[in-house]
Amino acid sequence: MSHLSPLSASELSLLSAEERATGLRLACEAIIRGPLLVYVPAQSQRSQQTVRKTVTESAIPICPAVRKVSLKLSPATMDDGEGDADRLFKCLSEAHGLSNLHIDFCALRQLSDVLRQSNWQITATIWMDREVIAVEPSVSSMILGAAVDIGTTTIACYIADLATGKIIATESAMNPQVAYGEDVLSRIGFATQEPDGLKTLQSAIVGELNRLLVSATDEVGLKPEDIMDLVVVGNTTMHHLFLGLTPRYIGRSPFTPAIQRAANIKARELGVAVNRGAYVHLLPNEAGFVGADNVGVMIAEKPYLRDEVSLIIDIGTNGEILLGNKNRILSASCATGPAFEGAHIAFGMRAAPGAIERVRIDPATLEVLFKVIGKNEWQTLYSSEEIGARGICGSGIIDAIAEMFRCGIILKNGKMNTDLISPRIIVGRDSRPEFVLAWAQETAIGANITISTSDIRAVQLAKGALYCGAKILLKKYGVAVPDRVVLAGAFGSYIDKESALAIGLFPSCPIEQVHSVGNAAGKGALLALLNLNERAEAEHVVTAVEYVELAMEPDFEREFYQAMQFPHMIDPVASCTSRQVRKTQPIT
Amino acid sequence: MSHLSPLSASELSLLSAEERATGLRLACEAIIRGPLLVYVPAQSQRSQQTVRKTVTESAIPICPAVRKVSLKLSPATMDDGEGDADRLFKCLSEAHGLSNLHIDFCALRQLSDVLRQSNWQITATIWMDREVIAVEPSVSSMILGAAVDIGTTTIACYIADLATGKIIATESAMNPQVAYGEDVLSRIGFATQEPDGLKTLQSAIVGELNRLLVSATDEVGLKPEDIMDLVVVGNTTMHHLFLGLTPRYIGRSPFTPAIQRAANIKARELGVAVNRGAYVHLLPNEAGFVGADNVGVMIAEKPYLRDEVSLIIDIGTNGEILLGNKNRILSASCATGPAFEGAHIAFGMRAAPGAIERVRIDPATLEVLFKVIGKNEWQTLYSSEEIGARGICGSGIIDAIAEMFRCGIILKNGKMNTDLISPRIIVGRDSRPEFVLAWAQETAIGANITISTSDIRAVQLAKGALYCGAKILLKKYGVAVPDRVVLAGAFGSYIDKESALAIGLFPSCPIEQVHSVGNAAGKGALLALLNLNERAEAEHVVTAVEYVELAMEPDFEREFYQAMQFPHMIDPVASCTSRQVRKTQPIT
Repeated sequence: MSHLSPLSASELSLLSAEERATGLRLACEAIIRGPLLVYVPAQSQRSQQTVRKTVTESAIPICPAVRKVSLKLSPATMDDGEGDADRLFKCLSEAHGLSNLHIDFCALRQLSDVLRQSNWQITATIWMDREVIAVEPSVSSMILGAAVDIGTTTIACYIADLATGKIIATESAMNPQVAYGEDVLSRIGFATQEPDGLKTLQSAIVGELNRLLVSATDEVGLKPEDIMDLVVVGNTTMHHLFLGLTPRYIGRSPFTPAIQRAANIKARELGVAVNRGAYVHLLPNEAGFVGADNVGVMIAEKPYLRDEVSLIIDIGTNGEILLGNKNRILSASCATGPAFEGAHIAFGMRAAPGAIERVRIDPATLEVLFKVIGKNEWQTLYSSEEIGARGICGSGIIDAIAEMFRCGIILKNGKMNTDLISPRIIVGRDSRPEFVLAWAQETAIGANITISTSDIRAVQLAKGALYCGAKILLKKYGVAVPDRVVLAGAFGSYIDKESALAIGLFPSCPIEQVHSVGNAAGKGALLALLNLNERAEAEHVVTAVEYVELAMEPDFEREFYQAMQFPHMIDPVASCTSRQVRKTQPIT
Repeated sequence: MSHLSPLSASELSLLSAEERATGLRLACEAIIRGPLLVYVPAQSQRSQQTVRKTVTESAIPICPAVRKVSLKLSPATMDDGEGDADRLFKCLSEAHGLSNLHIDFCALRQLSDVLRQSNWQITATIWMDREVIAVEPSVSSMILGAAVDIGTTTIACYIADLATGKIIATESAMNPQVAYGEDVLSRIGFATQEPDGLKTLQSAIVGELNRLLVSATDEVGLKPEDIMDLVVVGNTTMHHLFLGLTPRYIGRSPFTPAIQRAANIKARELGVAVNRGAYVHLLPNEAGFVGADNVGVMIAEKPYLRDEVSLIIDIGTNGEILLGNKNRILSASCATGPAFEGAHIAFGMRAAPGAIERVRIDPATLEVLFKVIGKNEWQTLYSSEEIGARGICGSGIIDAIAEMFRCGIILKNGKMNTDLISPRIIVGRDSRPEFVLAWAQETAIGANITISTSDIRAVQLAKGALYCGAKILLKKYGVAVPDRVVLAGAFGSYIDKESALAIGLFPSCPIEQVHSVGNAAGKGALLALLNLNERAEAEHVVTAVEYVELAMEPDFEREFYQAMQFPHMIDPVASCTSRQVRKTQPIT
């Protein structure tokens, strides 16, 4: 029986046949009779959904580092021949009470022409009430900022209107440094061992950021020069590579960063092509392996304001964990590797059209339902040619492993159960068993898409690292389980929570206390962009957080070994019907 | 009779025959019996003389903007993993009481390696107790600064040891912008009308400065990277062109500079190749045509501390005048043109070997004695081939005109007296009379070196501009004559004061109250380099000085016309014997 009431008379009259075919229902008419996951179409949401690395928008009080002021100066005359900059400072002091100001050198170079072009009526952009960073002729109130999250694998950029706090454009791309090393350690190796390695990596990330800033501002008919402020977060290595600081000593004991505190650096010194006078603010780093991105997560989630103990897992190429409440916060870094981002997985790929992102396996027949990004329905609703699967992204991998474990295809120790007879269990190129998710004819690559034994191993290592890290922090903190779990990161927002629990990605917690918050690091950057108080808060909390070097903990190896195992099922089988899909349509 | 006692027995025994032949005497033995000018050999002076644009060294209290501190940091450990920069700040705070410090971005890039190379014992260079601008491994106390005077025609650069205040190297060169325009107005035209004009001029001056800094530091076995601080002065146009600020509005009424107040700009932003973290400090500008160079003159001469009324004339391509005492200071700018620097004079040349720098004419015979730079004696002591005159420099021109006027060759209105019969009075190429200073055979150019009617005109215009400016300021100030006259500028230090008085370069003043102080603008830059209090004083006095726009004065045209005339002789004829020559040897 369906968990939803049949279409009402009103729905039949108001919804088109096409809309009805997509499963669309009216919330005011449909009656829910059992567990159900509901998808709210983009057009009914407050803002359009954007692909991956989205941040959750919420009402952020606005108090940015930069502001524009309109000024009417008295023109220079023979009797009043004061210099242009001196005249500007005088006006800012008299009309806006701003004293002891400086002027950016590039702004100074423009000032004289701008004043006369605009008949002495200009708009000045002031940074931190300290420095005139730009001058424009005539009245201009549009003032943009960019929040940038530099991940090891991806880079995301949010353009905000600093007057309203609204995100007006979002862009993301691969971190081009991937070509020089997949993870943090290989990047450190490249930067420190190759000739001009650091410069190569710095130029690569800045070049990509500049491209993102062009396309993001272009979306809204503006230009990168309209960007007057930036906040950048990243793990400590990304932070250092972006600034051109050697990451050599982050990579070796005692893993010391070149700078922990927040930094303000002229964008032009870094080659970042925004307004010539703009600063880049970098949130502080916690430690060698817990960087400004985790500080971003912290101010976005603010576990330090809560009574409940939060376990916050930021899943990227590196996994970062925060545990605590208003009394105490611990942090740790886990070398998960890029398995969750599709790397080190035979058919792994980024979350892009064609990627298998959802998997369900029938325990009786071992038949597979999967959904690829770009299609709304499970693959069985399309002809073979239409499906066009190209690989598996992170959430698809978690789903597949969880389902294979649930159906007994994978054993507790991660080995494939070769006693099972199914055409989907085949012998791979390495003579070890593989499980076929998509048959060659269902793909765009003309080959079976499979999960291999070594794929399972990569996921075990990754999830083991996170689970073990969380366990050690819980023990140090003196609690058995967290009150709530927050999954952050591009990946966290697409993960199926039950599948994640099923494979043991994090210690057990009631499913309703598991929250996906999307790119919290990016959201933290955005908060710091929009509100100076958040920057102050970041500087404050970074000194309070206790960093735990997991590898130094006596329990580490034992915990890690145990965490690699697959756990007993907590919540044996939930009907496929109740699982999240992208439409309300139940799967039968 | 000689004005000097004959050689004593001691002198005969102590001085070599060669030394005696050069006229060398011992100050403890020789008895002076009449007017005499004494030349102190370079080796007996406190410092070696350098050619032109020298500054007068005096005891300057040292309080520079930069200082080096030696630090021993506690190494990072697993228990103390604080970031490198944070550790540095902590150490500077604990050991030196310096708080709220920043670190220059380029210094930050070096910090981690430097700390570890030097086993955590480093030297940090601190600017204004505000910013760490450089870090070096191990102990280093040598700290250099550069004072730079950018003139319209020449650029001079003094390298000082900021620990001792001693000038350790001096270099000067032509301002390469001369190729794009001889005076301030033609430079403004080039900068504002030619494509990339401003950029071309900015690059030219910075390129030349960089070459000077290399050769100056090379002289003393050091490198431009050892320079940690710079102070630059120049007239307002040179100031703007050096910074890449448009000089457009200095060139048109109301002649407003882009910035008057002092500025601190990172040298690297300007392309100045010194230490990457160093700042350039620019002294404030007084007005559109009285710039930071005049502020340099002011703090070097400090007329505002005196009871007597000083008239300070800084003679360059532009002439700048200061008049006043502790109660009030007036300033003005005079468009003298480059005649005093040898330009716009048919045989004019810079003060370089071969230039005629001294001239005496016998009123009876109209025969000429002259001295060229590079030779110690009047030309009559050399064979024709040895003389090698190439042209006339500024002091030679003043001497020549003064002597020609004294001997009646030039009339009061500047015309040549064609009633005189002399083989030296010839008809020039423009069919107007010329006076031959050097016969072709006495030159290295194979042609007579002459003073033409238009040369006299150029000098009249130049001296007229200065005289008229001084007269107008005196009138405004309410005094008839100044208590003292100070001649500043490269040219001022080589001028024959009596010749200058004779042609009416400045209003009459007792000759003993006329002082030549050399490159006072450069000395002011040096003071500001060595002592922060001088920078503060400059900022203060610049607001107190009253700038007078001469062309706006009702008397200007009449005064200028009168000032072009040659004056009645004040002190009819002084014997050649008493005139300054470069050796004590009297001329007979």
